[in-house]
Amino acid sequence: MIRVRAPATTANLGPGFDSLGMALELYLQVEAEFSQSGIEIVFSGVRDRSIMESPQENLLYKAMNFVFKQARYSPSGLYIEIDNDIPIGKGLGSSAAAIVAGMFTANRLIGDRFLPAELLRWAVKMEGHADNIVPSITGGLAVAMICEGEVYYQQVKPGSQLGVVVAVPDFILPTEQSRAVLPQNISLQAAVTNLQRACFLLASLQNGDFSNLARAMDDIIYQPLRKVFIPGFDQILHSALEAGALGVALSGAGPSILAFTAIGKERDIGQVMEKAFNEVGVSVQILCLKPDLQGVQYY
Amino acid sequence: MIRVRAPATTANLGPGFDSLGMALELYLQVEAEFSQSGIEIVFSGVRDRSIMESPQENLLYKAMNFVFKQARYSPSGLYIEIDNDIPIGKGLGSSAAAIVAGMFTANRLIGDRFLPAELLRWAVKMEGHADNIVPSITGGLAVAMICEGEVYYQQVKPGSQLGVVVAVPDFILPTEQSRAVLPQNISLQAAVTNLQRACFLLASLQNGDFSNLARAMDDIIYQPLRKVFIPGFDQILHSALEAGALGVALSGAGPSILAFTAIGKERDIGQVMEKAFNEVGVSVQILCLKPDLQGVQYY
Repeated sequence: MIRVRAPATTANLGPGFDSLGMALELYLQVEAEFSQSGIEIVFSGVRDRSIMESPQENLLYKAMNFVFKQARYSPSGLYIEIDNDIPIGKGLGSSAAAIVAGMFTANRLIGDRFLPAELLRWAVKMEGHADNIVPSITGGLAVAMICEGEVYYQQVKPGSQLGVVVAVPDFILPTEQSRAVLPQNISLQAAVTNLQRACFLLASLQNGDFSNLARAMDDIIYQPLRKVFIPGFDQILHSALEAGALGVALSGAGPSILAFTAIGKERDIGQVMEKAFNEVGVSVQILCLKPDLQGVQYY
Repeated sequence: MIRVRAPATTANLGPGFDSLGMALELYLQVEAEFSQSGIEIVFSGVRDRSIMESPQENLLYKAMNFVFKQARYSPSGLYIEIDNDIPIGKGLGSSAAAIVAGMFTANRLIGDRFLPAELLRWAVKMEGHADNIVPSITGGLAVAMICEGEVYYQQVKPGSQLGVVVAVPDFILPTEQSRAVLPQNISLQAAVTNLQRACFLLASLQNGDFSNLARAMDDIIYQPLRKVFIPGFDQILHSALEAGALGVALSGAGPSILAFTAIGKERDIGQVMEKAFNEVGVSVQILCLKPDLQGVQYY
C-alpha cells in the first residue's frame, strides 16, 4: 500500500499574484494499491467531497491516470482511499493538492519511473498555474517563475515563529469568477508598488522579521477588485489587524481569508475573524495552522 | 578627523525596478573635520570629479548641510577630503553614495545626533528614490518598500560565491533621460512576469542558487525600452552569457552593464564584454567586484 499526503496551500499572500504560495499543515492523504480489477475509491473522514465523488470527475484519479498514460501503463485494477482535510473551492489549493497527491501516488505505484521535476511540470500544466502546485510539492514558501512554458522555482523557509489562521466562509468562490475581474492593464506605478511589497514580503518571511507584514501584504491590484465577492472583507481585515494579526490577505482567489500571527495568538485572532464574519451573516470555519515545510510526502 | 566610506550600488538587477539594489565593493571615501573658518573641499585620487567640483553643486556637501540644518548647527568652518572611486553618471549609484557619505559624516561630526533611520529617510528624500540609497546604507542586497511616504527595507545577503563584473561605457546616460522612456501603463501579464522574475531572483540570491539567474534577470518592461541608449546592448548581453555569465542586466538606469559570475570568472567575462563594446565603437572600463556586505562605514 502506497501512502501519500499533499499539503494545502495559500497563494498570493497579498501582492504575490501567480508568484508566491505557502504550504500549510493541512493535508489531503491518499492510500492506494493495484487490485485485480475495477476502480474503487473510498472516502474516509472527508469533510467536503463535492469534487471527489465521481471517479470521472475526480482530479486525483485523473492525475494518477495521466502518470500511468505517460508510462504507457494500464493497471488492471485500482484501490484508492482518500482522506481529505482541505476545504474545497475555498482558495486553499484543494485541486493542487489532489493533482500532486495523485501524480506522486501513481509514480510510486509504478516504481518511481519519473523524476519529481517531471511530475511538477505535468501538475502545473493540469492545474493551469503554478502558485499552488509548487508549494504543495516543495513545502514552505515557494516562488514560481514560468519562462517559455517551463516552471522554475525557489523554496524559502518562513521563520519558525509564524502562526497562520485561515477563516473559511461557508460559500464557494470559483477561481474563474475571481479571475474574471482582473484588469488587462495596470499603471506602472501600481506594478512597482506591488513589486516592492511582494519582494519585501518574501525577504521579511525569509529573514523572520514580521514587523511590517501588514504593509507588505496590502495588495492594491487584485484584492480591491476581488473583495467585492467577500461580504465584510474590509471589516474582517481591520478587526484581525487591530487584534494583533501580523498581516492579512485573501487566500488565493478566495473566499478564505488568511492571517499571519505570532505563535500562540492564532485562536484569539481566529475568534475575532469569526465574529466579524458572523456580523455580516456569514458562517466560517476557523483553522489554526502552521506553515508546512516538507511538501508532498510518502509516509 | 571623521572617516566615512559609502559603497557604490547597482539597482534593478533586471526586473527589480525601484525595488532591488545591491551594494558593491567600490567606494566613495570622505575625511572631514570642523575648521576655524571657510569651506575647503579637497579631491584626492578622484577619477571623475564632474559633479564634485563646485561646493554649491556638490551633493555630498549639500547632504552634510542638510543634516547640520536639521540639528540647527552652523559650523564655523569645514575641511572635507573626498576620494571617490565610483564612476559618475554611469548607473552605479554615485549620487546615492555621495548623499549617504555626506549625511553620515555630518551626523558623526555633531556627535551622532540622529539615528541611522532618520538619515536614511532624509537621504531617500534627497535622492528621490530608495533603490540605491538603501543598499548603500545597509550593504548586501536590499529590498526597499515605500508606503505612505515612509521607507521600509529588508536586507538580504547574496551567496558568498557571487562575482560581479561591471562594464562602464565612456558616455553618460542621465537618469532622467533613461526614466523618460518608461510607459504609463503595462499589461497585467507583463507585470506578473516581472513580479515572478524579481521574486525568483531575490530568493535565488538569498539561497545562493545561481542556476537560473539569467532567466530571472531578463527584464521585459524597462530594459527593452532603455537599451536603445546603449549601442550593442543585445550583443554584449549575449556574449557575456555565452562566455558563462550567470546573469546580465542594465545597472540602474545605465549605461553600465552588470554581469554576475562565478567567483574567479570575472576577468574572462569582463574581457568578453569589453570586446563586444569595442566592436560597436564604445570604450569601456571593466570593474571586477564583489558585493559589499557592510554598507556605509566609519573607518
